[in-house]
Amino acid sequence: MSECSGSCGSCGVSDCGERTAPAKAAPNKRSTIKHMIGVVSGKGGVGKSLVTSLLASEMRKKGYNVGILDADVTGPSIPKSFGVGKTLSADADGINPAESASGIKVMSVNLMLPQDDLPVAWRGPVVSGVIKQFFDETNWGDIDYLFVDMPPGTSDVFLTVFQSLPVDGIVTVSAPQELVGMIVGKAVNLAKSLEVPVVGLVENMAYFKCDECDKEHHIFGEPQGAEVAERYGIPAVATLPMDPKFARLVDAGKVEEYDVAGALDAIIAKVEEF
Amino acid sequence: MSECSGSCGSCGVSDCGERTAPAKAAPNKRSTIKHMIGVVSGKGGVGKSLVTSLLASEMRKKGYNVGILDADVTGPSIPKSFGVGKTLSADADGINPAESASGIKVMSVNLMLPQDDLPVAWRGPVVSGVIKQFFDETNWGDIDYLFVDMPPGTSDVFLTVFQSLPVDGIVTVSAPQELVGMIVGKAVNLAKSLEVPVVGLVENMAYFKCDECDKEHHIFGEPQGAEVAERYGIPAVATLPMDPKFARLVDAGKVEEYDVAGALDAIIAKVEEF
Repeated sequence: MSECSGSCGSCGVSDCGERTAPAKAAPNKRSTIKHMIGVVSGKGGVGKSLVTSLLASEMRKKGYNVGILDADVTGPSIPKSFGVGKTLSADADGINPAESASGIKVMSVNLMLPQDDLPVAWRGPVVSGVIKQFFDETNWGDIDYLFVDMPPGTSDVFLTVFQSLPVDGIVTVSAPQELVGMIVGKAVNLAKSLEVPVVGLVENMAYFKCDECDKEHHIFGEPQGAEVAERYGIPAVATLPMDPKFARLVDAGKVEEYDVAGALDAIIAKVEEF
Repeated sequence: MSECSGSCGSCGVSDCGERTAPAKAAPNKRSTIKHMIGVVSGKGGVGKSLVTSLLASEMRKKGYNVGILDADVTGPSIPKSFGVGKTLSADADGINPAESASGIKVMSVNLMLPQDDLPVAWRGPVVSGVIKQFFDETNWGDIDYLFVDMPPGTSDVFLTVFQSLPVDGIVTVSAPQELVGMIVGKAVNLAKSLEVPVVGLVENMAYFKCDECDKEHHIFGEPQGAEVAERYGIPAVATLPMDPKFARLVDAGKVEEYDVAGALDAIIAKVEEF
């Protein structure tokens, strides 16, 4: 943390206590990032990468220039979801990101590995260095919204991203199980201590509807997004079902084609306020 | 890694290339650990903690002395699953672990926090130190099988546990989605490079059966455990359904009461071979 008192609101220090609108970031001469949104959860497997992909796709459909920085270096799943392969190239000015069918810029460690299932066994400081490099040395171009798909948990990468990159706000992802909600609370409390506003909670896997008999099942317990959001003072809530289409589209690299049918509107409205 | 050539098979170095039966570990004068099994996945949220809990419970039902070291320090869920609270005490000889209803010894960072949702924002080296301390300074007593619930991914804690603790073998947990299978491959490849045998694969959330119309749904895609196990040379496979009972029992702290109906027998037989 800096020694800034946090009272000026305009010193430009990225973790200044009172910043409400971080200065537009220009990580390199070919890139301008207007806004940066971190997608986090305290626990893995609640669908954080899916929510990142859907938020980015929805914003792109609205006409914004959108990028995704896949910071989940030990389990990167964004490239596969968008069907972007080993399309990275680099020149003297930096790394050129991959681009999805609809034009979303994607940067991920998996774009650099010769084989998808090779492990990346890097200790924390190395991971943190890679994330900073992804931000600083990618030719992002002009980006309105850069989404950062965070790894689960609250360790090194979490601290690095929120202490050193100009993140405007956080969207947190949860699943109904009470246990998971508790663990998400850890991430929310840490974000608050780092003075980054949490703008929305997406409750994923909230229910499953049988396509044979229409019965709605709460496989992971009763939905509780509204309650969790209230407990932690989060302004917007969205609900997503368990839908076999997600797995099919992600496996086919066509996550952009999913129609969220307005389910994320409340969150998107908050993101657009930045 | 040590400088051991890996050819003797009996030098006692914990990461010796050819070890088939690591020496019984005595981390402190009050504890003897006969066997140590790591439960891993490359990706979070596939049910690794649930599988750890079920394996430990099944082994306990068979009469073994069982412990769980919850190494997922940034998202520890084992204490809640077993309904063990803040019951830790310490004396000059070390920390006394919590104990479940059926007598499973549990050690977890969540047992030390004043509030369940407080974040643990420790960088890698600190996390690694805590895990080693949990192993070395807990009064485990005589343990036949100590299960280590690993955090997702393949970073610091993964390296620490497999390089410095006497792990006999690994059980890996996957979900049907092709994507998740790919990420699990990362963990399996890393374990192989560290010379720790992978004894079993549990395919969790393989299907969901509607209790109204009996239709079986593959929400996360077609099951593929057998194929993944064959691809990576894993000898035993088990399949678990999505079952609302899991969430209910875990939330109630009664995971030990779940009846796996023999689903884990193949894996347990392999674990008993150690």
